[in-house]
Amino acid sequence: MSEIKDEPKGLRVKPINNGTVIDHIAGGQALNVLKILGIAGTTDATVSVVMNVESRKLGKKDIVKVEDRELDKSQVDKIALIAPNATINIIRNYNVVEKHHVEAPKEVVGLVRCETPNCITNKPREPVRSKFTVVSYEPLQLKCGYCERITTDIVKHLF
Amino acid sequence: MSEIKDEPKGLRVKPINNGTVIDHIAGGQALNVLKILGIAGTTDATVSVVMNVESRKLGKKDIVKVEDRELDKSQVDKIALIAPNATINIIRNYNVVEKHHVEAPKEVVGLVRCETPNCITNKPREPVRSKFTVVSYEPLQLKCGYCERITTDIVKHLF
Repeated sequence: MSEIKDEPKGLRVKPINNGTVIDHIAGGQALNVLKILGIAGTTDATVSVVMNVESRKLGKKDIVKVEDRELDKSQVDKIALIAPNATINIIRNYNVVEKHHVEAPKEVVGLVRCETPNCITNKPREPVRSKFTVVSYEPLQLKCGYCERITTDIVKHLF
Repeated sequence: MSEIKDEPKGLRVKPINNGTVIDHIAGGQALNVLKILGIAGTTDATVSVVMNVESRKLGKKDIVKVEDRELDKSQVDKIALIAPNATINIIRNYNVVEKHHVEAPKEVVGLVRCETPNCITNKPREPVRSKFTVVSYEPLQLKCGYCERITTDIVKHLF
C-alpha cells in the first residue's frame, strides 16, 4: 500500500481567467449541460465538471466550468429546461462580471423537437417553430402547441 | 462588477474516500472514458473531471475521478486503447492502494466491433470474437484479423 495519504496529482482546479461557471445544476445533469454547449465525445474545450456533490440547496448538484466560452441565449434557455435552479457566472479577468439565475419557462419556443414525427413542426418545408407549454416541471413535461403530444425526454429532443 | 476575486463556489474537489482516479488521459478524451465506464447522459455517479489541463508529459491531459467504483479488466483495456498513457489509481480509505499504467496493446480481442457490417465477427449467430492487430497508435488504427478492414473511429465501435 502506498504511503501517499492524499490522492495523486489531484484535481486541484485552478480559477479560470475567462469563461463561464454554471453552478447549481440539478445532480447528474452536467453531461447534458455539456452536450448543450456542444461539448461531447472528444473535445478541445478546457472544462472542469463535478457531478453529484453535496448541496445544501439541491441535495446533490453538478458544477460545470468552461474556459474562454460565454453562452448564447439558446444555450441558456436549454439549460433552464434541464437545470431550472442553475446560476450562470460569467468570468472575465478572474472576476465574476455577470451572474444570472436561469428561469424555468412557461412556454418553450424553438428549443425542443416534438415527439410526433409528422407534427407540422417537424416538417422540413414548413416554416413553423416548435412551441410547447410546460405541463409539469418535475419531471419536465412539455405539451406541443400544435399536435398536443406530451414530450418528456427533453434532453433527447433538444435541437 | 462583483468584487469577488475568486470564482463563486468553486470546484474545490475533495479527496475521494474510495474509488478510482484515472490520470494522464490524452487531452479531450475524458468524456469517452466516462462512456467506457457507463457514465453518459443523466448519471447518479459522483464524478469529477478536468479536461485539457496543462501536462508536462502530455501537453494537455484529462483526469477523471469516480467515487465508489473500481474498473473491470474490459474497461481498463478499452481505456488503454483511447488513452495509452493513462494511470489508474485505486483509492481505498483515502489511500492509493494500487497504481497501474495501462498498456497499449498489440492485439485487441473482443473490445471493438469491426466496421465491416457483414464481417463474421458481426454475425450474431457466429461465436467469433472480434480480433484486431494494431496498425498504428497515433492515430489508432486497427486491422481486423478476419476481413482485414481497418477500423479508425475506435470510440464509436467500442462494445
